[in-house]
Amino acid sequence: MAQELEHLIGLLSRLPGLGPRSARRAVLQMIAKPEMLMIPLSKAMQAAAESLKVCSVCRSIDTCSPCKICDDRDRKSDLCIVEQVSDLWAIERSGSWKGRYFVLGGVLSSLSGVGPEDLPLTSLKQHVATHCYGEVVLALNATIEGQSTAHYIADMLSGFDVCVSRLARGAPVGGELDYLDDGTIMAAMKDRR
Amino acid sequence: MAQELEHLIGLLSRLPGLGPRSARRAVLQMIAKPEMLMIPLSKAMQAAAESLKVCSVCRSIDTCSPCKICDDRDRKSDLCIVEQVSDLWAIERSGSWKGRYFVLGGVLSSLSGVGPEDLPLTSLKQHVATHCYGEVVLALNATIEGQSTAHYIADMLSGFDVCVSRLARGAPVGGELDYLDDGTIMAAMKDRR
Repeated sequence: MAQELEHLIGLLSRLPGLGPRSARRAVLQMIAKPEMLMIPLSKAMQAAAESLKVCSVCRSIDTCSPCKICDDRDRKSDLCIVEQVSDLWAIERSGSWKGRYFVLGGVLSSLSGVGPEDLPLTSLKQHVATHCYGEVVLALNATIEGQSTAHYIADMLSGFDVCVSRLARGAPVGGELDYLDDGTIMAAMKDRR
Repeated sequence: MAQELEHLIGLLSRLPGLGPRSARRAVLQMIAKPEMLMIPLSKAMQAAAESLKVCSVCRSIDTCSPCKICDDRDRKSDLCIVEQVSDLWAIERSGSWKGRYFVLGGVLSSLSGVGPEDLPLTSLKQHVATHCYGEVVLALNATIEGQSTAHYIADMLSGFDVCVSRLARGAPVGGELDYLDDGTIMAAMKDRR
């Protein structure tokens, strides 16, 4: 196999979701018509690497810093704390939030050795202190790590005059009860309206 | 989401094996440290698109045409016919073949509407006619389409003074009998040695 090919397959197979076999398949498909996918992809990656940066305010990713959301004057009053940028995107797609965000970039995890000093909690505290937010939503994942991090942050923010809330737990829309775990059913029953 | 990001995620999700969700994850991972994966990947794709071409003799992919295998004087006497370039790579990795290759690029399939005129069978015939091969191995996949294509090519080459063979069928090395289908067990039993 040509060295260029081996190099490209090796790099591609480091993407999450692609192994060596699917990387080979992807390269073969791309090489068949380079102008269809390979050259546009190469250019898009170059452009993204040059233009994208981490927002200095919320730690999201955008072409400008502060990002468009932080710069939006209509999004001033409330803050939503998420684990990853992909969570921010998911909430934005749902259209259910019109406030700002703060991206933690991870959660506390004793197993992975992530302590409070490894997360930007000091920045978060300063951020909340300098903005007059009415509400802070802890939209962290419903995992043990996510929930203990939410607990930690709620404790940390208890001194501020701000309403701290969490996402509701319950049955997913369209989900069948028979397939839900006991914990979700208990939460849905407890918070019934 | 920034337009550059959306564009990149859209292109990435067209790779086989990646959907929109894994494309988003891949982009987030790449953006965290662009110089680790994103910039090298962009350059490798650019280089591959510029340097790789289809070999005019065997239809494999290499930086030169004829490719290194076709150009190798020690690989003259026998020919191995495969469906895709990835099959050629798999055989090369196994180290079990020291002859040349011919890549069909597909198989006959009445379901997908692929007829003999859609495959490079005329080139293959000319190729076999102009080279003095001792043996032609039909290393096509053990699917119905692969085997009917092998049958068609064997018929086509019957007029030439060349020994046409196929890959052996049997139990995969390391495989457990209990997990094999009936057809494979029958083939392994029939060709027992």
